[in-house]
Amino acid sequence: MKRENISRENFFFKCSSCGDGYEISLKDFIAKELPKILDLDSNKLVESYKRGNLKFYQSRYINALQFRKAVGKIEAGTMICLCDNLHVIRGFPKIRRTLMLKEALKRHFSGEVAVEEKMNGYNVRIASLDGEILAFTRGGYICPYTTRKAPEILKLDEFFRDNPDLVICGEMVGTNNPYVSHYYPEIGKLGFRIFDIREKLSGKPLPIKKKRSMLKKYNLPSVRLFGVYSLDEAPSEILKLVKKLGEDNREGVVIKDPEMQIPPLKYTSSQAHDDELIYAFRFPFDLGKAFFFSRVIREGFQSYEMQESADEMEKRAQRLGESILYPMIETIKHVSQSDVAGEDLIMDAQSLQEVEEFIGHLHELGVMAVVIKYEDGKAVIRRIHQSTTDKINNYLDGGLY
Amino acid sequence: MKRENISRENFFFKCSSCGDGYEISLKDFIAKELPKILDLDSNKLVESYKRGNLKFYQSRYINALQFRKAVGKIEAGTMICLCDNLHVIRGFPKIRRTLMLKEALKRHFSGEVAVEEKMNGYNVRIASLDGEILAFTRGGYICPYTTRKAPEILKLDEFFRDNPDLVICGEMVGTNNPYVSHYYPEIGKLGFRIFDIREKLSGKPLPIKKKRSMLKKYNLPSVRLFGVYSLDEAPSEILKLVKKLGEDNREGVVIKDPEMQIPPLKYTSSQAHDDELIYAFRFPFDLGKAFFFSRVIREGFQSYEMQESADEMEKRAQRLGESILYPMIETIKHVSQSDVAGEDLIMDAQSLQEVEEFIGHLHELGVMAVVIKYEDGKAVIRRIHQSTTDKINNYLDGGLY
Repeated sequence: MKRENISRENFFFKCSSCGDGYEISLKDFIAKELPKILDLDSNKLVESYKRGNLKFYQSRYINALQFRKAVGKIEAGTMICLCDNLHVIRGFPKIRRTLMLKEALKRHFSGEVAVEEKMNGYNVRIASLDGEILAFTRGGYICPYTTRKAPEILKLDEFFRDNPDLVICGEMVGTNNPYVSHYYPEIGKLGFRIFDIREKLSGKPLPIKKKRSMLKKYNLPSVRLFGVYSLDEAPSEILKLVKKLGEDNREGVVIKDPEMQIPPLKYTSSQAHDDELIYAFRFPFDLGKAFFFSRVIREGFQSYEMQESADEMEKRAQRLGESILYPMIETIKHVSQSDVAGEDLIMDAQSLQEVEEFIGHLHELGVMAVVIKYEDGKAVIRRIHQSTTDKINNYLDGGLY
Repeated sequence: MKRENISRENFFFKCSSCGDGYEISLKDFIAKELPKILDLDSNKLVESYKRGNLKFYQSRYINALQFRKAVGKIEAGTMICLCDNLHVIRGFPKIRRTLMLKEALKRHFSGEVAVEEKMNGYNVRIASLDGEILAFTRGGYICPYTTRKAPEILKLDEFFRDNPDLVICGEMVGTNNPYVSHYYPEIGKLGFRIFDIREKLSGKPLPIKKKRSMLKKYNLPSVRLFGVYSLDEAPSEILKLVKKLGEDNREGVVIKDPEMQIPPLKYTSSQAHDDELIYAFRFPFDLGKAFFFSRVIREGFQSYEMQESADEMEKRAQRLGESILYPMIETIKHVSQSDVAGEDLIMDAQSLQEVEEFIGHLHELGVMAVVIKYEDGKAVIRRIHQSTTDKINNYLDGGLY
């Protein structure tokens, strides 16, 4: 099926094999064509569109239909891209978490598991749409920054020339990135590590071996594979590994079926939990409540499964308390000096216009940010946490809780 | 107005002055009589009754209408008691909290403030209904245990003989109590401390001086009054005081307008925050989420207002972390040994029947509890936290998060 003309109201589709074409409205497309493409109930899609969970998405790159929420088996973040050809980029599936490795691995997997590093950055899907390479955020938005930087960092042309129907899924990491800034010695300012290669329409991931050989062939950087373990040895190996990763300020692991037939699971280090708490309690009234509980629960079960000594437990507990209280007090002090609760993020940019386009993209995501400085191809942008700023000011002025 | 006959359907009212009487249904009573008694819009009351927020309450002590939620100015916990005479026992108003004493006191009060101790027990209102002395919980339920123990601990007859239209508001404290067990050296097993005397229908509290002289006259125990301070000296005095109270494992203070014309405010010690976290994280999946956030926020602002040194801040943070993690790990270990997450509470009882009546009362409140032991006038009851038990078991079995 080939698209020849598009507006918010009407498309013109032409069958790519027979050449026959017809015009169709957006509503009819959702009710009649999309169910066939996605093998999904028409009523569900129409209902989802009515509720705004399936939305028309327009940017300078593409027109698309964006799944804001999951519909049946179609994940949130899935994009139906209405380019010259129609491309379905499936949302990246949520990876569930284990609290007790030993029991969960036994119950969830069979035979062996591959253990890869989980890195702390932001999730990106890269795809080629009729030759144009675009980068999608987790929610399906096309990120102008990532779309520009990905081809600078990665040699993607050859890969997509040979495999136009595959999607590269990976983590953008490093300190110079405007979403999640985390230092990795081997990355420095900005880097990309690939964890999955998936098929466009089905979202099906390649088996670990095939993925790795393909990345090697095209000279594309993979996340680290720590090893493939039997289910008997995996839990203790992973606990050891995650302890070491934590000590190096690294996030954790994703545990995968080598054939990728079973959904992966994640498991993270104590330091990663604390890092997230530190971040959340810098902005307690924007993030604290949502972040807190699950991180603390993870710490309890990890300490239990690691059979920690009183001394280790004490260290973990004290570190936890400091991760909560210190950043909050810092922010109260900061706001008391008539400042806003904000975080400064660094991005590379070739022009101020590029920075402003990115700020516009953040606004679209509901994130408040402003440009603080632009100089020598580098911009500092400030993300503002308004609830934290307002509430702290209110309490400092004697507002009641 | 005097009631002569009652069922869930119909009342018979007789005017206490003229003697005229008439029969009225519950619905008509809510629509026609109650609005006059409470000076409240009839529609609001009818609506509230329909939604179940205003409910018919029947116990072996009384029939009543219970306000499960506030309606206009009528607080949740208000009881319209349909005894021989009709008695309105107003709900105990929620006391708001200050995070920053200095600014909040200046904004909220004027002139002077009286500072009384806030004790850690459970809130009780005691009233005489046509000569029968009953004890109401915060929600308005008549607690059989408190109703029995209050007249044993306090000499109430004389007070209520002289003041049948007043309500005694206080805290039941001590270790032998089936709601909140906390040790106070001066209390020991069970005691009662009075913080307010209020009028039945209006809920209006007596001024501090009048309340204290009245309690003295009837030899009834008051909470401690630490002093009456000017708004200039109050914040630093209270901070000092609360620090000391915390070191003695005591909860905090309630700050009052000496005339009781302005609603009081509360302020609590760091140790009280930790104590509540310790309790909540013994049962993280029943209480953790709800308890956590506000306690942590209080700690942040208190540390800031106390201008703590790095050393003091470190102690506070580490104590906070231990209050969260230790009780949770304890409970995981406990549940892993095939046990339930529960807490054992002690109560005095003259018969097993009394204990079972109390268990029935807890069930009415939605609290799951069983009798563990009854011996020599003392019962041990176990309150069971089912969500925590179930969820921990699930995760220990490898359930995903």
